[in-house]
Amino acid sequence: MQFPMSTMFDAIALREWMSAVGPENVVADEGTLREAETATFATNRRIPAIVSPANREQVQECVRIANRRRVPLYPISSGLNWGYGSRVPATDGCVLLDLRRMNRITDFSEELGYVTVEPGVTQAQLYEFLRARNSKLWMDCTGASPQCSLIGNTMERGFGHTPYGDHFANSCGLEIVLPEGQVMETGFARYEGAKAGPLYRWGVGPSLDGLFSQSNLGIVTRMTIWLMPAPEYFQAYYFRCEAEDGLAPMIDALRPLRMNGTIRSSSHIANDYKVLSALQQYPWEETKGRTPLVEPLMGQFRRDLKIGAWNGSGALYGTKAQVAEARRLVRMALKGKATRLEFLDDRKLALASRFAGVYQRISGWDLKRTLAVLKPVYGLMKGVPTAHPLFSTYWRKRTPAPTEMDPDRDGCGLLWFSPIAPNQGIHARRVTDLAKERMLASGFEPAISLTVLTDRTLSCIISIAYDREVPGEDLRAAECYRELLTCLGKEGYLPYRLGVNWMAAMEEGNAYSETLRLLKGALDPHGIIAPGRYSSARADAAPGPTSNVNTVSIGS
Amino acid sequence: MQFPMSTMFDAIALREWMSAVGPENVVADEGTLREAETATFATNRRIPAIVSPANREQVQECVRIANRRRVPLYPISSGLNWGYGSRVPATDGCVLLDLRRMNRITDFSEELGYVTVEPGVTQAQLYEFLRARNSKLWMDCTGASPQCSLIGNTMERGFGHTPYGDHFANSCGLEIVLPEGQVMETGFARYEGAKAGPLYRWGVGPSLDGLFSQSNLGIVTRMTIWLMPAPEYFQAYYFRCEAEDGLAPMIDALRPLRMNGTIRSSSHIANDYKVLSALQQYPWEETKGRTPLVEPLMGQFRRDLKIGAWNGSGALYGTKAQVAEARRLVRMALKGKATRLEFLDDRKLALASRFAGVYQRISGWDLKRTLAVLKPVYGLMKGVPTAHPLFSTYWRKRTPAPTEMDPDRDGCGLLWFSPIAPNQGIHARRVTDLAKERMLASGFEPAISLTVLTDRTLSCIISIAYDREVPGEDLRAAECYRELLTCLGKEGYLPYRLGVNWMAAMEEGNAYSETLRLLKGALDPHGIIAPGRYSSARADAAPGPTSNVNTVSIGS
Repeated sequence: MQFPMSTMFDAIALREWMSAVGPENVVADEGTLREAETATFATNRRIPAIVSPANREQVQECVRIANRRRVPLYPISSGLNWGYGSRVPATDGCVLLDLRRMNRITDFSEELGYVTVEPGVTQAQLYEFLRARNSKLWMDCTGASPQCSLIGNTMERGFGHTPYGDHFANSCGLEIVLPEGQVMETGFARYEGAKAGPLYRWGVGPSLDGLFSQSNLGIVTRMTIWLMPAPEYFQAYYFRCEAEDGLAPMIDALRPLRMNGTIRSSSHIANDYKVLSALQQYPWEETKGRTPLVEPLMGQFRRDLKIGAWNGSGALYGTKAQVAEARRLVRMALKGKATRLEFLDDRKLALASRFAGVYQRISGWDLKRTLAVLKPVYGLMKGVPTAHPLFSTYWRKRTPAPTEMDPDRDGCGLLWFSPIAPNQGIHARRVTDLAKERMLASGFEPAISLTVLTDRTLSCIISIAYDREVPGEDLRAAECYRELLTCLGKEGYLPYRLGVNWMAAMEEGNAYSETLRLLKGALDPHGIIAPGRYSSARADAAPGPTSNVNTVSIGS
Repeated sequence: MQFPMSTMFDAIALREWMSAVGPENVVADEGTLREAETATFATNRRIPAIVSPANREQVQECVRIANRRRVPLYPISSGLNWGYGSRVPATDGCVLLDLRRMNRITDFSEELGYVTVEPGVTQAQLYEFLRARNSKLWMDCTGASPQCSLIGNTMERGFGHTPYGDHFANSCGLEIVLPEGQVMETGFARYEGAKAGPLYRWGVGPSLDGLFSQSNLGIVTRMTIWLMPAPEYFQAYYFRCEAEDGLAPMIDALRPLRMNGTIRSSSHIANDYKVLSALQQYPWEETKGRTPLVEPLMGQFRRDLKIGAWNGSGALYGTKAQVAEARRLVRMALKGKATRLEFLDDRKLALASRFAGVYQRISGWDLKRTLAVLKPVYGLMKGVPTAHPLFSTYWRKRTPAPTEMDPDRDGCGLLWFSPIAPNQGIHARRVTDLAKERMLASGFEPAISLTVLTDRTLSCIISIAYDREVPGEDLRAAECYRELLTCLGKEGYLPYRLGVNWMAAMEEGNAYSETLRLLKGALDPHGIIAPGRYSSARADAAPGPTSNVNTVSIGS
């Protein structure tokens, strides 16, 4: 193997890692590294090497080497952190610690509904695992990709669409390799033989799980995920309203049903732009190449494709009678607010798929086209992973999306800005109004979705989708992101998650930042793990002479 | 004011605290201090003074003084930590920081269902607050006492009986005075003007809330609690089974209903001893003064008072139709497992209370006696605080419980040991069998309850109730606690919470303890806040010459 970087980079470290994980699992060839440095937006971090340990012991050894050699590591689980930075580290000069080879499922209980996984275990892998066992348990998926790591998404506090949608809230028992190489388990899992290790979140004494989510204080090498029992009966609902100002009343109508437990999962409401970008790529022809897409053409698309200004979906889980009563309540709540409300179950969906044409003639509802978009969403609400949402990352491309989609490789521009708002109509309206105005002014289509993430909050996902191959667009998109961050932040709508270029944007130099700095200094004195991740990039936590990780010299 | 301790204790510190909070809010008289040192079991900690700040600024000032003078502080909210240590600090020589004066409710939203409180706000206070507003929100109560602090109970990870039973899981947005006096807020609450501060748990970046529960890393001075909307209809259910081995099948029958969301609250199952101790004090006459109470006399009580070997309660919340369907499912699940299953709603309860005698003749069920025990439990499931469970702390006393109950003052012996078990019949059986055997062998009645705390776990509360005025009992009870800890621990049933004498019992010298030690050292270099609380009493976190807080000299 050739290591063109080795003349520039710490050759001793490379050699030690090769000895720890096998030479074939240390990559330093230019091509692979440049790929790993490529996200769905412009970044300027250089990755000197990629190290892929096979197990926890190797992770520990890699971390010890990194400490000795003072080279920072940036752990990734699957690295499919699309829209937020893919595999790209928060600071320059970090060696990628790629955990994809650690893909064992180490524990499982059908009766108690949990599974314990390593970082490399993907959504697709867990789905297949459950299917192979004829399990009556459903996983909760994020829409990102079937190849997405469960641990990666959970530690980023991602979410899905079933009653277990808040991923981090439905996990426990972390195994963590600490920044100096020790292994720690959280909750009761830290006691050998503890019966509630995979079952009870808090354990006894201070609860440390939260410390390791969206953080750079350790490397999660194992985690238990809770799984929901498949209900006796499942029914999805879809609704929409034509008027843009119809959003607030719908949000307010659904909130009581969420808060009283009638709706146990995350309803999801997408605006017209979001739905259009799921149906097709940018209408270059109709716009004669002009961007952004605006009224009245946008209105034309809404009418032609029967897209509402707002388009909602959600699901009901329970016995037939429970679902029937929930259906009655949803109907009652949305009456006069949603212009369309349809319920869909497995039988109806199978029927509709077979007789879409006939169905359309009977019901007047164009199921075929709708089904193409509805089916993946329907599946997500039942814990079936889908690659479909990736399609919309090709929105502004001038070539069709390939069968094997890879937004990083294909120059898809995507930035996700994801503020949290109170679960109230007035806030839903305000966030989306602000975002729409700013984005159109910046020349991007405001593709927005709102997910009722918890009883009391909306997670608003604002997509800045563009074509990285168009000169200037990278910069314009970054400016738009920054503007959304500032403008929505000023009104109190703060992001639940950050893109890798803006990790320090939320620091205010207050006691929280100072506390994190102290904790980082205590656990990671040499600033080895993911410097700059969800913290100031200066990595000033490190007290010693090697404190500033940016000074780790490429060339030493 | 006289300060008899001041000749022995740090007079400068006392003077500074007096100047910070007002002389009337620094107590050092022997009588009050000895009272504060008295729990429901033997402890040997001396409290040199009690300081009562009125607001957060005063807390900060008190903490700064403590740092300068190197005197450790032990914060209490209401100090009603009965069964676990009341107001008694984990180590000797700590000044009590009594937060009861900080009792403001600072924020409230009917629509979003939350309230923000200071540490002195009690269950009764919040209940009255909601009632005065005709609020349609219900709080979740712990059975301990109406005077119990909401923050105190939540930070100890206590629980109640409604769908919001896991208190810590239903709180967010902590305000914390850190060990060196800075103020920090958690989650989004740390950003000024953040709209989701009281609504969204995780914020952005590492989530620190867990770090401050069951911990000694800071003083929580404010917290938001989520409140549930009152349901359209409420119905409680009560069930029992006569056979001791009937527990496991009931647990297994109820689990699927909890996991699928049919039962949203914590079912509660108490054994015969637990129910008896709620109905009456120890039968000194019938036992001719002998302890413990055993078969066949215990069987006699079961028959006479219609107590099952296991006695369950729970509640259903929803629309009439939702509750009806849940009722059908509970009935079906418990059929052939519970020998009695009764449903009770407000109407039936009012009726029953009025016509208990008539009702008994019709139904054959002795409602009057039963109602005395059922009503407080019924209320708890609707968020009504009750002092009733305190009655059982007088179980072994030879005098009747007074109207104003105070177990600390009245020499009631009480130790609560509270292991977590998987929500499975086999584990419920094993934990309770082990506990019963050990306790009877130690001479105590095994009063045990099991609460389905989360979908996957049972919280098992084992009460060691005794009379502290009987010589030798304190020691025997402590030995019994230790034996339960060891014996159940060996089988993997670990406590979710610890008594103040056993705070270091769960340390294993592993990476978790070491991490906590590092965090403590980073945040609290002088070991000022609650040394020994949920950690090794050696407080070896402190690196300096004043590291060992036990060396803070009484007499300096």
